[in-house]
Amino acid sequence: MTLDLIRRPARDVVRCLRRGEVSPLELIDAALDRHTAVDGTVNAVPTLCADRARTAAARLMDDPAGLDVTAPGWLAGLPVFIKDLTDVAGVRSTHGSPIFAQHRPDRSDLVVETLERRGAVVLGKTNTPEFGAGANTFNPVFGATLNPHDTRLTCGGSSGGAAVALATGMAWLATGSDLGGSLRVPAAFCGVVGLRPSPGRVARGPVPDPWCPMTVEGPMARDVADCALLLDAQCGATAADPFALEAPAHPFLAAAERPQAPLRVGWSPDLGLWPVDPEIAAICERAVRRFETAGTTVDAACPDFTGADTVFHVLRAASFVANLGPLLDQHRDRMKSDVVWNIAKGMAQTTADVADAWRARAALTARVAAFFETFDLLACPTTVVPPFPVTQRYVESANGQRFDNYLDWLGITYTLTLTGCPVLSIPCGTTTAGLPVGLQLMARPRGEAALLSYAALLEGLLGHCLAPIEPRIGI
Amino acid sequence: MTLDLIRRPARDVVRCLRRGEVSPLELIDAALDRHTAVDGTVNAVPTLCADRARTAAARLMDDPAGLDVTAPGWLAGLPVFIKDLTDVAGVRSTHGSPIFAQHRPDRSDLVVETLERRGAVVLGKTNTPEFGAGANTFNPVFGATLNPHDTRLTCGGSSGGAAVALATGMAWLATGSDLGGSLRVPAAFCGVVGLRPSPGRVARGPVPDPWCPMTVEGPMARDVADCALLLDAQCGATAADPFALEAPAHPFLAAAERPQAPLRVGWSPDLGLWPVDPEIAAICERAVRRFETAGTTVDAACPDFTGADTVFHVLRAASFVANLGPLLDQHRDRMKSDVVWNIAKGMAQTTADVADAWRARAALTARVAAFFETFDLLACPTTVVPPFPVTQRYVESANGQRFDNYLDWLGITYTLTLTGCPVLSIPCGTTTAGLPVGLQLMARPRGEAALLSYAALLEGLLGHCLAPIEPRIGI
Repeated sequence: MTLDLIRRPARDVVRCLRRGEVSPLELIDAALDRHTAVDGTVNAVPTLCADRARTAAARLMDDPAGLDVTAPGWLAGLPVFIKDLTDVAGVRSTHGSPIFAQHRPDRSDLVVETLERRGAVVLGKTNTPEFGAGANTFNPVFGATLNPHDTRLTCGGSSGGAAVALATGMAWLATGSDLGGSLRVPAAFCGVVGLRPSPGRVARGPVPDPWCPMTVEGPMARDVADCALLLDAQCGATAADPFALEAPAHPFLAAAERPQAPLRVGWSPDLGLWPVDPEIAAICERAVRRFETAGTTVDAACPDFTGADTVFHVLRAASFVANLGPLLDQHRDRMKSDVVWNIAKGMAQTTADVADAWRARAALTARVAAFFETFDLLACPTTVVPPFPVTQRYVESANGQRFDNYLDWLGITYTLTLTGCPVLSIPCGTTTAGLPVGLQLMARPRGEAALLSYAALLEGLLGHCLAPIEPRIGI
Repeated sequence: MTLDLIRRPARDVVRCLRRGEVSPLELIDAALDRHTAVDGTVNAVPTLCADRARTAAARLMDDPAGLDVTAPGWLAGLPVFIKDLTDVAGVRSTHGSPIFAQHRPDRSDLVVETLERRGAVVLGKTNTPEFGAGANTFNPVFGATLNPHDTRLTCGGSSGGAAVALATGMAWLATGSDLGGSLRVPAAFCGVVGLRPSPGRVARGPVPDPWCPMTVEGPMARDVADCALLLDAQCGATAADPFALEAPAHPFLAAAERPQAPLRVGWSPDLGLWPVDPEIAAICERAVRRFETAGTTVDAACPDFTGADTVFHVLRAASFVANLGPLLDQHRDRMKSDVVWNIAKGMAQTTADVADAWRARAALTARVAAFFETFDLLACPTTVVPPFPVTQRYVESANGQRFDNYLDWLGITYTLTLTGCPVLSIPCGTTTAGLPVGLQLMARPRGEAALLSYAALLEGLLGHCLAPIEPRIGI
């Protein structure tokens, strides 16, 4: 029974919930059973809140007044997992930091309030790196989350616990967030789908920098259509986030369920900037060229991203100062060295450095807009290497080229962050070692609907290696 | 004939244009006649481009292919004036600076391209302070623009030429932009309407900081409905501005033509922060209380704006560095002292200063969101003093209290900038000296439609003192 339920796509389960053919309580039990079976091995969901979930489910079944029961993204009682960088009222919310090891917030973050209004039932918190810094999911509070395809390896990050929970069938849907690649890298390493939406697509808060959004919240799921469903559940305008966009006229799920071929795709193995493992590049190129069977033209083409590394480093560091600067003053000894380095880097920057980065980002944005006059999608690998040993803090080199710091192995994702365009990572194959490989697809700003439709088409074309790749400890 | 045409609301003239009852060429001639009659006195539109306008009008009448003839904001050949901070292809675009005194750009800014696609015919450029800094419209290229209600006085700024062009009947519609109050202050001083929209409402570019929008583009007009029409002509999503919002499902003009009473209005004479001339405060309060005759509750109430001055100064200075920093290196001697001061202030700031300002702005935004849970509008004066002598660079004190710098007399407008909410200034009365007074109305983020509907109601209730106040050299 458990395996039956957890193998089904979220959208099917939600349709059953809406028709009353399954109850939220059964789903909670199924997810908890699966957690018992696998989380001891992978350590993806260190915090559960089963009582809170059952109470919420009962209330939702009893009296859904005040909830968005008619919204396209109405989840009707589906259990979901929330990334542990996000506060959930009454539930341990550590941000992966010893400073917050016992933190039980009184109020949920906006993304959780939105999801609960849409009928999601929060069942647990997924593991992240300390404050989400870096893309290997380990922290001093809960330790490391392991890749279900090979538990010696990292699952990526920072939404690492979320990706593993999906890949192992503990969750149908899970939330994540993304500054430099945190929705995409773990999706790639675990064989699931992660979508970094446009800023404003998913309302967020409280945050220290609502007016200069770089970090976004977004959905992760086991296939493109489920990812679209969660985006429907997450999106919509609210007074609490001045940049939040209205929900679209047509649900994202409808777009994903109507796969369409893009006319023209630009393909780049490296964005012109980054060293990439040749096997990864070859697998991704083979995958993107599957579009050609649907009549799509796939050209080697890419906007000019020169200078993206400097821009990202400056803006990321400024964001770290805004987010964590006050904490550093009080708790320097309890923060990991990468975080301290990143804040200190920000503190040393001048306003002129930030202004230069703004100007360079503006120029980059204009070049990307010009690219999209010709192309419907940009495709490139999600990661420059396959999953690496979990004991290694970060990737030190790719294709024989060394990286200067803990971030630049993520250059191929963080470069796309700067564009503000929606970017999705889908599984596109496996290495000879049997490890999942992710392909990034990027569409025009706010072009989530088209992106999901194109991605669904490619997912269908790739079929055999997808949705989900059965993990070795699989479902 | 000229006076007949120029006295009519823009929306009526546009309806006539759409029906072919008047031609764009007649309107160009009418506006030029009026320019000849009055601009020698007020110096509001120092640059005309009549030949370009006639060519554009002829092309538009001949073959409107590629233009947005079905858009709600289709202007069908209406001549408009563009603020001289904005580039118009082939037309002298000085930014009020000697550095750009002979600048004739090859390409128009995005706001101009949008308007031209919507059938606007650019007829000239309106005067501004140098780089838009400060709210008294004078510069070394063109000199000062004078207030048509008393030519010894300033018209305000930085969209000063635009406000005067409207008040004197040289234009039906004119564009402006607003960082600290530049669409609102000149509207107040000249007796016209200026709307600072939400960031993203009007696409803009190229700009150095598209990702942290503080400056917005927006409409100015002689009454609320005309202002809504221009906003319809300016709005809509485009790939070139990643924050640009979709046009609304219902035109803004329709909202303005269906006046509605807000349930509850918060009124503050001073936002709890700023000294205000008592006569101005009294005129504004009397005006806002006219809402009560429509059943609206008007309470003395205001979000807590503590700290807004520091936040604005830091973010403005950062924006000046991004915009003008590179220019300062080359041309310091040719830039006015206020601009140099503002850039230098930005250069001296650290990333921590900027991060502190982001956090404080986030807290302020949250307090404003809470305010709008109870209230539909916030109302306060647009300026803390009536128009002052044009020979005075800026206001040094109000109600007996001195200001520290050239900006703080604009505190009552720049404080509202930080909220990201749409703010409109409408004429609400005249001082005993016969000078126009403006009232600011602010609605929820992106609540332009409701704001225009409420403002149209108040405009109707105030009737006698409005739309437009006939200037002394009037139309």
